[in-house]
Amino acid sequence: MVARTLKLGAFMRPVSIHTGAWRYPGAYPDANFNFAHLKRFAQRLEQARFDAFFMADHLAVLNMPLNALARSHTVTSFEPFTLLSALAGATEHIGLVATASTTFDQPFHVARRFASLDHLSGGRAGWNIVTTANPDAALNFGLTEHVEHDERYRRAREFFDVVTGLWDSFADDAFVRDVEAGIYFDAARLHVLDHRGKHYSVRGPLNIARPVQGWPVIVQAGASEAGRQLAAETAEVVFAAQSTLEGARRFYADVKGRLERLGRHPDTLKILPGALVVVGDTVQEAQEKRARLDSLVHFDSSIASLSIALGCDASRFDPDAPLPEIPPTNAGQSGRERAIELARRERLTVRQLAQRLGGFGGLAFVGTPGTIADQMEEWLVQNGCDGFNIMFPYLPGGLDDFVDRVVPELQRRGLFRREYEGRTLRENLGLARPPNRFFPTAAAAR
Amino acid sequence: MVARTLKLGAFMRPVSIHTGAWRYPGAYPDANFNFAHLKRFAQRLEQARFDAFFMADHLAVLNMPLNALARSHTVTSFEPFTLLSALAGATEHIGLVATASTTFDQPFHVARRFASLDHLSGGRAGWNIVTTANPDAALNFGLTEHVEHDERYRRAREFFDVVTGLWDSFADDAFVRDVEAGIYFDAARLHVLDHRGKHYSVRGPLNIARPVQGWPVIVQAGASEAGRQLAAETAEVVFAAQSTLEGARRFYADVKGRLERLGRHPDTLKILPGALVVVGDTVQEAQEKRARLDSLVHFDSSIASLSIALGCDASRFDPDAPLPEIPPTNAGQSGRERAIELARRERLTVRQLAQRLGGFGGLAFVGTPGTIADQMEEWLVQNGCDGFNIMFPYLPGGLDDFVDRVVPELQRRGLFRREYEGRTLRENLGLARPPNRFFPTAAAAR
Ligand SMILES: Cc1cc2nc3c(=O)[nH]c(=O)nc-3n(C[C@H](O)[C@H](O)[C@H](O)COP(=O)(O)O)c2cc1C
Ligand SMILES: Cc1cc2nc3c(=O)[nH]c(=O)nc-3n(C[C@H](O)[C@H](O)[C@H](O)COP(=O)(O)O)c2cc1C
Repeated sequence: MVARTLKLGAFMRPVSIHTGAWRYPGAYPDANFNFAHLKRFAQRLEQARFDAFFMADHLAVLNMPLNALARSHTVTSFEPFTLLSALAGATEHIGLVATASTTFDQPFHVARRFASLDHLSGGRAGWNIVTTANPDAALNFGLTEHVEHDERYRRAREFFDVVTGLWDSFADDAFVRDVEAGIYFDAARLHVLDHRGKHYSVRGPLNIARPVQGWPVIVQAGASEAGRQLAAETAEVVFAAQSTLEGARRFYADVKGRLERLGRHPDTLKILPGALVVVGDTVQEAQEKRARLDSLVHFDSSIASLSIALGCDASRFDPDAPLPEIPPTNAGQSGRERAIELARRERLTVRQLAQRLGGFGGLAFVGTPGTIADQMEEWLVQNGCDGFNIMFPYLPGGLDDFVDRVVPELQRRGLFRREYEGRTLRENLGLARPPNRFFPTAAAAR
Repeated sequence: MVARTLKLGAFMRPVSIHTGAWRYPGAYPDANFNFAHLKRFAQRLEQARFDAFFMADHLAVLNMPLNALARSHTVTSFEPFTLLSALAGATEHIGLVATASTTFDQPFHVARRFASLDHLSGGRAGWNIVTTANPDAALNFGLTEHVEHDERYRRAREFFDVVTGLWDSFADDAFVRDVEAGIYFDAARLHVLDHRGKHYSVRGPLNIARPVQGWPVIVQAGASEAGRQLAAETAEVVFAAQSTLEGARRFYADVKGRLERLGRHPDTLKILPGALVVVGDTVQEAQEKRARLDSLVHFDSSIASLSIALGCDASRFDPDAPLPEIPPTNAGQSGRERAIELARRERLTVRQLAQRLGGFGGLAFVGTPGTIADQMEEWLVQNGCDGFNIMFPYLPGGLDDFVDRVVPELQRRGLFRREYEGRTLRENLGLARPPNRFFPTAAAAR
């Protein structure tokens, strides 16, 4: 039994994160439009005691050529608020984390929808704050170009203040509902925010009671300097993209260090790297599954991504030969070096390399339940993470493998819960309920 | 058996439309935050074969003094998209109509959420287009004053074009999902909207497949000249506020006439006046229920509304005496005359008049199942309506009365369905599925 245990989220797209997954045997290529599948996934994750179902979101189709776009299911998805609200009714314990953009939505709407989801689900909502990286989103919201990166983060910071201020409009005990006297709420326990900031003017109050959790759990996935600082100032869960333990440890120390400098206890924020998990009876079988999955990524579209990563036209290489020497370029170096290093290490052909990167290029645990649990344990013990945001290589098979085989192994080792600790997402994650900034002494009431 | 049958919607606020309802014996004063109640209401309405569950929405607390606001449950509610998505999972047939504002939201978001709700619910979504009358909403969205009335409607018209254009991004048969060839959708069956109008610039495409219904059903509730014209040009259901049969017939003829002038068949738009229904064993018992309900409206707040209606300070009148002679004023005349006429006709005291108007001042059918069915039949036969949007005086009792007693009486007379005719809201309302404007010949596919 180890002292710390893993927190596990499931980072979901209806068909899978992996762009080849819709072609994998047994996959549900129509899951983008078929709620019955999503309901089953969420219920299985809840049976396995996952902390949360994370729903990614994008405000435009991916910015790639139309022909590449047409090769993968990732072109469409359900919208997170509607999907997660529907899942709220089909589940009882699992957290429901929706991605919402601070660059292209309004604080009043965002505050309201999360408060409503939190009430509907009995305290299971979380907000993945994103500033939206895809520049094409701007074109869907009346702009001709994207808002500049650091400016997006300055807006996000103020947006967060407005949303949390709106959530605090009513004291937790404001709603007295005194039928005899005819008093529905105590007018002295309502705060009108009257926010006037650089980017937003919002009067309030919110027309919904304070969320069950006080505030839904705040999640952040930004990787830049500004993104990390926003996370340190506001987030309770960070969704990291770290593909080596060494890098993850540096990231972990950096973000937790920022917390301490802000006077926050390091435990008040959980760092969960995203990890694709492929399970086999043997390591080799798992690797074969992954190779098969990668081979289903359409080559024409993946070669375009590889060309961008390498900074040269990869379509002129022999696809079935090893990667030739690549001359240095002026383009970004880190993607180029990572690709070259990966090709050498795993002896991939050009085609395999392109399909690997085009499918899913991040952290992956590929092995048996035992080797996967070993790796997860090592990341936890070495302070590389507080848990993981699991990505399933294909659905439903990859999810079932994780739930039926990896979770019991983690439980056996005392690395993962057997029962939910609390009723709310916040309680399960071990996070405190934030006091109301305007009514700090009110007892939490429901 | 009559030729036409009624369409029935339920116009819902979680506790009730009536501001005194939370104090009525047996009411659920906490329904604003308690999904279990709403789920039960929706399931009962579905058992009764209602066409739709209509969810009202407001983007600010009601613009009244804080002390009046604190007297009623109407201060808060669930947010419609989250609530209706959760109800989608708890029901199978009933339509789910969400109110969304064209003045304070973005077409891309609105198009997406409705498309997502339509997919989640298997084709049961409807969009109640409002331009938002409450001027305080502007203060929650960065404005210092409300957008001018007719300008709001001009924006609404363009907003509608953008939203429907985005819904048509993909042909109905675009998603071929050819696993062998690796083609997820046919790139030639995707249309990039590229809308550049006076008020909105939206590139598209929408990142979600065309809704099950083609377009969710379009609902409109505007009463002004601009509102009626928008309805005639865009709506398939109109939610009318008509309190006399004579007025309703004029409204019906006006709106259907506008349709014909636009080349639309009158049956392509259903007019549903809102009606509060109070059921008793005798007419007198129903009237007593209503009087009791009105008496639960807080007098201090209702007298303020009466003063506004009369254009003079009503708080100086004897509350328990009949309404005295009211001198003419420069203020609006119609509300004043209606109030005076109502007080005379029903011999109401000042207090009773204030509470009547403060509770719910619109059309009400108060009587036995038989008298209520008589009145509904008369409105239908006399071309005052195509059905009603029912408001329940208090919940759950008022809803149960309607479902258990009025619906069977309407069915017995052949005025209302016994089984749903179709699978989608559109099919149940008898409305055609709109062709895709960019791919008019595609077969509808799912
Ligand atoms: C695992 C992971 C998941 C993410 N999910 C989303 C998402 O659903 N929607 C989105 O707009 N951005 C998403 N992002 C992008 C981040 O919000 C962020 O833009 C990106 O990590 C770049 O960091 P930066 O914005 O600080 O430069 C995700 C990032 C990571 C690492
Ligand atoms: C029965 C009924 C229900 C309505 N529901 C809403 C609502 O939920 N939200 C809203 O903002 N406006 C609502 N409205 C207001 C209308 O959208 C509209 O603003 C009002 O009828 C005034 O008409 P006009 O805007 O054409 O002047 C409703 C109106 C009626 C008659």
